[in-house]
Amino acid sequence: MKIALAQINPTIGDFSGNAEKIISFTQRAVEQGAELVVFPELCVCGYPPADLLEKPTFINRAQETAQQIGIATAGLPVYILLGSVTRNTKHSTNLVGKPLRNAAVLLRRGEIIFEQYKRLLPYYDVFDEQRYFSAAEQQQLFAIGKDQIAITICEDIWNDKNFWPQTNYKEDPVEDLMHQAESGLPKPILINLSASPWWKGKANLRREMLGAVARRYATPVVMVNQVGGNDSLLFDGGSFAMDSTGCLIAQARSFEEDLLVVDTTVAGGNQKSADLNDIASTYEALVMGTRDYVSKCGFSKVLVGLSGGIDSALVATIAVAALGAENVTGIGMPSEFSSTGSIEDSRHLAKKLGIRFEILPIRTLVEEEMRTLAPFFAGTQFGLAEENLQSRIRGSLLMAVSNKYSALVLTTGNKSEMATGYCTLYGDMVGALAVIGDVYKTRVYELAKYANRERELIPLATIEKPPSAELRPDQKDTDSLPPYDVLDPILEAYIEYYEPADKIAKQMNLDAALVADILWLVERSEYKRQQAAPVLKVTQKSFGMGRRFPIAVKTQV
Amino acid sequence: MKIALAQINPTIGDFSGNAEKIISFTQRAVEQGAELVVFPELCVCGYPPADLLEKPTFINRAQETAQQIGIATAGLPVYILLGSVTRNTKHSTNLVGKPLRNAAVLLRRGEIIFEQYKRLLPYYDVFDEQRYFSAAEQQQLFAIGKDQIAITICEDIWNDKNFWPQTNYKEDPVEDLMHQAESGLPKPILINLSASPWWKGKANLRREMLGAVARRYATPVVMVNQVGGNDSLLFDGGSFAMDSTGCLIAQARSFEEDLLVVDTTVAGGNQKSADLNDIASTYEALVMGTRDYVSKCGFSKVLVGLSGGIDSALVATIAVAALGAENVTGIGMPSEFSSTGSIEDSRHLAKKLGIRFEILPIRTLVEEEMRTLAPFFAGTQFGLAEENLQSRIRGSLLMAVSNKYSALVLTTGNKSEMATGYCTLYGDMVGALAVIGDVYKTRVYELAKYANRERELIPLATIEKPPSAELRPDQKDTDSLPPYDVLDPILEAYIEYYEPADKIAKQMNLDAALVADILWLVERSEYKRQQAAPVLKVTQKSFGMGRRFPIAVKTQV
Repeated sequence: MKIALAQINPTIGDFSGNAEKIISFTQRAVEQGAELVVFPELCVCGYPPADLLEKPTFINRAQETAQQIGIATAGLPVYILLGSVTRNTKHSTNLVGKPLRNAAVLLRRGEIIFEQYKRLLPYYDVFDEQRYFSAAEQQQLFAIGKDQIAITICEDIWNDKNFWPQTNYKEDPVEDLMHQAESGLPKPILINLSASPWWKGKANLRREMLGAVARRYATPVVMVNQVGGNDSLLFDGGSFAMDSTGCLIAQARSFEEDLLVVDTTVAGGNQKSADLNDIASTYEALVMGTRDYVSKCGFSKVLVGLSGGIDSALVATIAVAALGAENVTGIGMPSEFSSTGSIEDSRHLAKKLGIRFEILPIRTLVEEEMRTLAPFFAGTQFGLAEENLQSRIRGSLLMAVSNKYSALVLTTGNKSEMATGYCTLYGDMVGALAVIGDVYKTRVYELAKYANRERELIPLATIEKPPSAELRPDQKDTDSLPPYDVLDPILEAYIEYYEPADKIAKQMNLDAALVADILWLVERSEYKRQQAAPVLKVTQKSFGMGRRFPIAVKTQV
Repeated sequence: MKIALAQINPTIGDFSGNAEKIISFTQRAVEQGAELVVFPELCVCGYPPADLLEKPTFINRAQETAQQIGIATAGLPVYILLGSVTRNTKHSTNLVGKPLRNAAVLLRRGEIIFEQYKRLLPYYDVFDEQRYFSAAEQQQLFAIGKDQIAITICEDIWNDKNFWPQTNYKEDPVEDLMHQAESGLPKPILINLSASPWWKGKANLRREMLGAVARRYATPVVMVNQVGGNDSLLFDGGSFAMDSTGCLIAQARSFEEDLLVVDTTVAGGNQKSADLNDIASTYEALVMGTRDYVSKCGFSKVLVGLSGGIDSALVATIAVAALGAENVTGIGMPSEFSSTGSIEDSRHLAKKLGIRFEILPIRTLVEEEMRTLAPFFAGTQFGLAEENLQSRIRGSLLMAVSNKYSALVLTTGNKSEMATGYCTLYGDMVGALAVIGDVYKTRVYELAKYANRERELIPLATIEKPPSAELRPDQKDTDSLPPYDVLDPILEAYIEYYEPADKIAKQMNLDAALVADILWLVERSEYKRQQAAPVLKVTQKSFGMGRRFPIAVKTQV
């Protein structure tokens, strides 16, 4: 069968925009000879809609939109399979369980002719689907001409007991579907509608896992994944089709919309987009996430506070790649502790990026604030309060310009800082989006080098100098923290894998007390992270919605 | 049987502190002749532990602590029933599903002699239990002497098809247990270990619902609920026992620890704590929540920015009730737009509360910040940016004093403001805890009157003057918003009940465009709420963890 993989970037709640996109991709698919066009999970409303699903008007709009798409495409000789939310008809009679279904809706000549609901509803990390949906009670094959299709939605295909050492669910919807196939007939084509968020390593994992499924059932597999950024979540697309030996027939682009038409009767093929390596794909994911967050929020312009350091330089570079130099403004806010080099490095960066750059010195503001605080501060020693005060003045200046010009502030903190609390709440943490909040500092350097792959955008001086917050004389990050090449593996072991302190110390041959001190910093900074801007997620365990910790606890590390 | 209701206030992760409390309450229960002492759900680790449950060391500590409690109480002639987390032994062999159980553990003479797991794992509002736990496969009665007990955990008892018009689960654990009772024997005593968060109306609902259960099965019911604040969640305690006709035998105090011993063979009784009305219980809940958040975070002192308005006056009054006047400092930060009355009202309040009060005028800081911003602001008109700037200077001063003196800032915004975005991110929104963030403005007035019930703490002038942010000349809240007695019912209908704009307008006889404008404000302020301090939850739908909305959406109201 000729199947179109319609890899679209929907906006959550933009029913008319999403419908237009679905109709236009369907028309293009028909022009290319497709008999069936497949769209991603919940593409009518966008994924993840979260508690918008609790609004009856939202559900009404989704159901109406699916019908309108049917009407608009009624004249086209094609089956359309798209993801939408529908009401659980069983619920309206028995009043038990959740009232909605995460559905794959099959349209033909203007009518909904078949629906298959999602059976496995994930509830871990960033996923909360049991909060909203009733699971499908069963799977059913559907015949299109002489072919049969086996429809699954995202998680449904991620529970193969032969692939995973342990599984989250007893049921295996793929197995159920394949057991329904009559012997003698061609195997059903396995189709998966996904909204599968990306993180480092996920694209490979997806292909390996689905390759194993294709081989196990000796049948072609077609996976269509959402693309685009929605708040923290970055969907890479990378939709693909495999033949019955698990070989790729075709693979769509990553991090942009795409439309591919494949013939599942043909083995192998060459419609493959090149794979990016880890660093390149992280960079492209961050560019897409920044672009989509800003535009889906209805903005076009951004501000970045430029300190002369590598974090803000990288964020500004990503912003330019995402939005164009004309939409990015850099602001330097030197204090008495800022080195001349820092200001020069920022100016240098701004010039190379071609962005507007302004300097707002904060020295007199710091002095005035210290005078104002005299009733509390007189006679006390310079310390954390005075350091944070500088950072908060910078935050307030950025926000003032943001308000004046309707430009979003991009936060520049990295994951190592957010993990250890080496950042100031309402200071350097201000902003609409934490672009590199899921990138450890050691990886910030790698991304900076990648950003410089064609020409030097980020000045070498910025990359090479020792990291410093420049909030007191001659400060270096290593005054408070171990070097990042020691720190980051500790943080990763703890945050991503929940390793205990003694095990980390032993594995890395470090002092147990040093490791415990660092883990203690992580625990005690939870209150800061809960007031942080949304973080673009590029690892399996990012700060934000997929990591839910209480604040008022007795800390154990 | 003589049963002790041990209503304790555990701290999440404080295993040794919680164990001490459990042992000491057990000793007191024995002294009062109890044969069985019942503690709340998950009291060994505190509720809700959230993703701490993903840390193997946390589970180890919980399991060790339950054993240590057994050893420490081995000499006491009593059964101890307590809530803890245990590993799912099925999971270690079949590797399917979640690896943990939410368990009621029965201890006797130092040994764990019985475990009953929770069967209904809630997954809505603030609850995420399916994220962590496998549900019990079955319920089992347990015999203590000639009596049988039917053990349930919180949600297990909330699914009675005869009480609720619709239910969340197919299973009814209470029905299952009661069907196991042999005829001719006394009915099993129904015991429920709870960590049931409070909100307005919940205490009554709990009693009505359990009264219906007691009558349906003609058996006594004992419900032991956690007390205390954990971040946003406020547990009221209010544990109770009912006889087999659904009449209260005894009811523990609300919002504080308590130990009651009841004899389930005696009908009725008089060990009943008085019920508080809605306003009084909301006030006490906020006092408890403030006290517990501050102390469980390891702090004792707080700061409140006093504007002269009713919100900050109420928060300061709650803080004094929670922490004592000596631990509360008020800071007035007048600008050129602050009325003399506002400063005088704040001074007056501080005097009545007996708290330290300092004035930090912000006028020169505003001027200096405007000078600093000249490259961006020169030639532009006074507007939102200049208003927010004043608020952010105040936030930065509060945080500076907070850092200097290790005192937490209490945020003073109310629910009407947080709903409409009538608040400044990093300005008046700074702070560790949003004390009245779930209280609509019209209820703020009622709470202020309640705070003044014995003597005038909050000056009448503060209560009577028209609300104003005082960020521009002669500003009133009603310049931007309808009066609060119009606004609040609109917000409540939308936020608590998801009513659509047209229905709200019709029901309240309002202009549909006005209602739509307000709902639009709610939608467009989501980004602010996601960076807000934790909000003490006192209604069914509070901002925070129980309300999960995406930011980058196409808004529909």
